[in-house]
Amino acid sequence: MKTAIVIEYDGTKYVGWQRQENGLSIQQVVEQALSKIEKRKIAIVGAGRTDAGVHAIGQVAHINCKLSVPASGLSMALNKYLPDDISIKNAYEVPDDFHARKSAQAKWYRYVFFNGKKESVFYNKTSVHIRNKIDIDLMNESLQYLLGTHDFKGFMTTSSKILNTERTIYEVRAFKDGDYVIIDILGSGFLYNMMRIIAGTTIKIALHKAQPIWIKQIIDEADRSIAGKKLDAKGLMLMHIYYDDSYKEGLPKEKTAYIARYFI
Amino acid sequence: MKTAIVIEYDGTKYVGWQRQENGLSIQQVVEQALSKIEKRKIAIVGAGRTDAGVHAIGQVAHINCKLSVPASGLSMALNKYLPDDISIKNAYEVPDDFHARKSAQAKWYRYVFFNGKKESVFYNKTSVHIRNKIDIDLMNESLQYLLGTHDFKGFMTTSSKILNTERTIYEVRAFKDGDYVIIDILGSGFLYNMMRIIAGTTIKIALHKAQPIWIKQIIDEADRSIAGKKLDAKGLMLMHIYYDDSYKEGLPKEKTAYIARYFI
Repeated sequence: MKTAIVIEYDGTKYVGWQRQENGLSIQQVVEQALSKIEKRKIAIVGAGRTDAGVHAIGQVAHINCKLSVPASGLSMALNKYLPDDISIKNAYEVPDDFHARKSAQAKWYRYVFFNGKKESVFYNKTSVHIRNKIDIDLMNESLQYLLGTHDFKGFMTTSSKILNTERTIYEVRAFKDGDYVIIDILGSGFLYNMMRIIAGTTIKIALHKAQPIWIKQIIDEADRSIAGKKLDAKGLMLMHIYYDDSYKEGLPKEKTAYIARYFI
Repeated sequence: MKTAIVIEYDGTKYVGWQRQENGLSIQQVVEQALSKIEKRKIAIVGAGRTDAGVHAIGQVAHINCKLSVPASGLSMALNKYLPDDISIKNAYEVPDDFHARKSAQAKWYRYVFFNGKKESVFYNKTSVHIRNKIDIDLMNESLQYLLGTHDFKGFMTTSSKILNTERTIYEVRAFKDGDYVIIDILGSGFLYNMMRIIAGTTIKIALHKAQPIWIKQIIDEADRSIAGKKLDAKGLMLMHIYYDDSYKEGLPKEKTAYIARYFI
């Protein structure tokens, strides 16, 4: 048996999930906390490499080695060593063949716009301000083209070295919550920057500057250069990673508030 | 005519509203931004001196002198010079006899508890975590004793030099929003730390460690030493300041989400 942890973080101050040379990553902070508890070097493997500034309420990582602390006490023990903007929500014993990234069946990402007059200081690090009115119907219409299995290469930053760019999108929705506009996408997986490029494309359509069919053209031509801009990382939230077939039931029906309390 | 501004801030990083020697205050940051625009020293007077760590979505301040920028353009001009955690929501021309503190008719404060298992990293700076179950009915029953005009000296930090400790409480309510428990109080004014001591007293009652009548005893005896603890500043939010008699209509009926979007 090994251990998997569910991690929530405000990504504002970090260089991203993945450990790297040029700054502090969430992975590094969690590994350091684990190493303190275990009094030796511990490495973890995350499910998704969220970029600098991207947030998560449902990131998952596995720990390869056996720990001295049981899973039941791990989140409380770890949280003592973690800063205010990173929190372990849960820890589970998982089978030896569990792999946080490879075992994932589906992922749910959320992109959040603020569409009011004045941003809130409490939400301006977790949403992107759009001044002009967002047309939710157009946004939903355009997102429909993503559904199904396609080559999403046109929605991937070209520096990515991934070869298989086919993914399946199971569900899409855009809805308003007060002054916030929220995009939820449930898919088998997401290419590098895919959510942020989708957000930058659909927002242009929702501001009446392009047609919904544009999304289909980008898929058909698989050409990044014809897609919309990659939007700011701070609007993106990794909501949940599914390791069983419960993703087939779709996203939770209750359209939860701006930052979902669904899994918290 | 002079100008009044409505200010929202996340108080986490500040020593409080009021300018002081030992660190950066919100007043100082706003004054510095105003001084940059006007190219001379500008002083402002706030409606309430929120403590270090207390937040506001409806703080009000007036500017004594005539400005070169009209009120209509002031918030946009000022926000360019303000950090992410302070925002000017509105600016108004007000009569010369307007005084942000003295002209206030009523104030609305909110105190927020998180009553779930694991705190959210997105809300842990704007709520106080209580692990045991909060009894909302007991909380509401106890808060009723605050209604009306009383000497609230028992709910004031004793270092305060204020002599008139009589205030009128117009409305009280406690309610649940998901895992959050929210206390709203509308009153003619609040003594130093009054909201935080009320929160510390009512929470003890709501955790079945004291009787609701305790609140009445504290009022009757006007003795700080018999009241509950002063709770953490981070749970407190200055919601709104009323300068006309609209406070007589009471708090907005829609019990808004955790951080109210009502005035945003």
